[in-house]
Amino acid sequence: MDHPIDIRRRHLLLSSASAAAAAGLSTLSADALAQAKPKPLPKFADWKYIDSMIVHSASGVETRRSAYGTSVIVPTDILFLRNNIAPPDEMITADANTWELTVAGVNNPGRITVGDLKRLGITTVATVLQCSGNGRGFFKHKASGSQWKVGASGCVLWSGVPVSEVVKAMGGVSGGARFMTSTGGERIPKGIDPKRVTVERSVPLKAMEQALLAWELNGEPLPLAHGGPLRMVIPGYYGVNNVKYIGRLAFTEKETSVNIQRSGYRVRPIGQKGAASQPSMWEMNVKSWINSPSGEPGEAVRAGTVQIHGVAFAGVNAAARVEVSLDGGRSWKNARFVGPDLGRFAWRQFVYSARLEPGNYTIASRATDTAGNTQPRDRVENERGYSHNGWLDHAVKVTVA
Amino acid sequence: MDHPIDIRRRHLLLSSASAAAAAGLSTLSADALAQAKPKPLPKFADWKYIDSMIVHSASGVETRRSAYGTSVIVPTDILFLRNNIAPPDEMITADANTWELTVAGVNNPGRITVGDLKRLGITTVATVLQCSGNGRGFFKHKASGSQWKVGASGCVLWSGVPVSEVVKAMGGVSGGARFMTSTGGERIPKGIDPKRVTVERSVPLKAMEQALLAWELNGEPLPLAHGGPLRMVIPGYYGVNNVKYIGRLAFTEKETSVNIQRSGYRVRPIGQKGAASQPSMWEMNVKSWINSPSGEPGEAVRAGTVQIHGVAFAGVNAAARVEVSLDGGRSWKNARFVGPDLGRFAWRQFVYSARLEPGNYTIASRATDTAGNTQPRDRVENERGYSHNGWLDHAVKVTVA
Repeated sequence: MDHPIDIRRRHLLLSSASAAAAAGLSTLSADALAQAKPKPLPKFADWKYIDSMIVHSASGVETRRSAYGTSVIVPTDILFLRNNIAPPDEMITADANTWELTVAGVNNPGRITVGDLKRLGITTVATVLQCSGNGRGFFKHKASGSQWKVGASGCVLWSGVPVSEVVKAMGGVSGGARFMTSTGGERIPKGIDPKRVTVERSVPLKAMEQALLAWELNGEPLPLAHGGPLRMVIPGYYGVNNVKYIGRLAFTEKETSVNIQRSGYRVRPIGQKGAASQPSMWEMNVKSWINSPSGEPGEAVRAGTVQIHGVAFAGVNAAARVEVSLDGGRSWKNARFVGPDLGRFAWRQFVYSARLEPGNYTIASRATDTAGNTQPRDRVENERGYSHNGWLDHAVKVTVA
Repeated sequence: MDHPIDIRRRHLLLSSASAAAAAGLSTLSADALAQAKPKPLPKFADWKYIDSMIVHSASGVETRRSAYGTSVIVPTDILFLRNNIAPPDEMITADANTWELTVAGVNNPGRITVGDLKRLGITTVATVLQCSGNGRGFFKHKASGSQWKVGASGCVLWSGVPVSEVVKAMGGVSGGARFMTSTGGERIPKGIDPKRVTVERSVPLKAMEQALLAWELNGEPLPLAHGGPLRMVIPGYYGVNNVKYIGRLAFTEKETSVNIQRSGYRVRPIGQKGAASQPSMWEMNVKSWINSPSGEPGEAVRAGTVQIHGVAFAGVNAAARVEVSLDGGRSWKNARFVGPDLGRFAWRQFVYSARLEPGNYTIASRATDTAGNTQPRDRVENERGYSHNGWLDHAVKVTVA
């Protein structure tokens, strides 16, 4: 192969090794890298750096723990990917400004193009984008879905128009609305009941205050893989609510009755079916994990001073504090936040400098948010393996030589 | 062509058009795009999105004004490029952790690898990286060097170790040191006087407080094109001081006597030669410009409400305020800052919402920093076309139809 991306790819291949070494760790062995050779990326996202990714399926691609850097923002090339159904044709991003959004449940309903949305206002927000099932891979009951560990997440920058500006331009929300409902622009195959597969999500109306309709991700036009030409972004809410290729925005009295809302993305005991009476995957909970050392196979850590680093966030609240334990949670010390604070919806990077003697360690992190919520020790068992923020499963096991 | 990068490239090609349309502008014509077809990128940076770049030479590549997004951070793929001499071999980034830095002018001088630097500490800083000659293309006296307009600049995230931590680990700075001197790792061709070409820059010792030795750019391992495996980053200082592939760091009583410091990068009247008595290109001055509308050839703006947006920064001070004029500076209105504040060394994005009737406009921006410095109207004429921050030349001429 001799095309332009190779050099970057080489960097990223090395980056796994490099990240592994970040806190004084030896690099992954060639064997470990070979074993880790992933499935191919889906065609619509084949520009991602595959060496930094774990491909679960064509609709589920995770960032390797060791590929996360310490620069707060996760570059688009290594950002995780998750689709509920096949995306629309790539060409919808070719003339992004002509994409139309239908707006209902406002006093002056109608349609508006992306080009015209760009005339209404511009804002930029950093958010943690995280799949509801991030951490599912730590559950023991074989919860259905991609077996994500920590990598179905990323802190990214979105630019777009505040939803509140769009609503203002359309005369305000109609009386009685209690939910904001977004519908994806995927084509529904003929012969399939649209309710079964339509990506349509309702969130409480209050989320409108922080929501934006985004056309730009990390400084570049939003690619199809991440919802271009236009995506609903609801800072602090799980990924599924951030509807891709949004074609319709409605302010509604009730939640939508499509499967993905009614029975899908509901937290319930193992063995139970989803139902509208169960909690929906809306606001994210407080969470943190360590990225280096990563505990990945083949990693070895050299004794001495090591910079242990990771990320912490808390949905609509900022992370206020992170503690690190070197002994599996028996004792804890405060870590330091470093780097710029991108606001309450972003994650913070934390660093803890430790002097490690040879031996085996279980290194854990535990975050507390500005509302006083602290990560629990254990996962909350649930059928689909949602919203895992237990610190014990997220701890890394490291051998120091 | 049928390789992975194509899809992103398509995005970026479209992004020029897309950005042009951001404030309700019509897209660039096919003719304008064809005319704008650039020279090829240098091999070590051929992974950049050429459609977003203006290639002046193999060592000077600028970001198109219309390619800047509004997400604060400029992605590495479209970040400008400037080298003083040919970079080292790509392979120095292949095993980044073994790269060695020699440290002198400290109480315990010695050598340290990147791998060991990573054990000393980690921080992340957002800075505006800007070439001293950014804006040179606006001078009328044919100043020697790349004819940059606004695109030899970018706000980026760096991760690395604070220089102060390295100094502490090496016993502190030796008595008498007044400068911090960084030497690039380029190979000097045989038969050439090293003083003529060595990239070695001295800055006042006080700059150490904010400086870092960086191995990561925007969340990925620092590529060769931007100084990998290790770069000196001096927030608030012009690009040239941010020495790439740094091989030696010295705390010195005097400035280095190599040409690039002694006579190069000195501000002097037109026609004069460079000399050590003239001001050196250290701290950047207050500056702003509008990115959309871009005023690029072929752009047309449709009448109505338009979101005028751009960036503002001020070296070691934060930008405090930006005004926008629609009439070439006769009257001014305050613009709003939007998006996260990444700290005093970063730029802020500003937005001004204007209702534009058909006609011709000269749209200007004027920034003021926290120290009370305001951009002047006019450029300060100087031999090499350095440090241009006059608002008039940076204004965009726009026809609204």
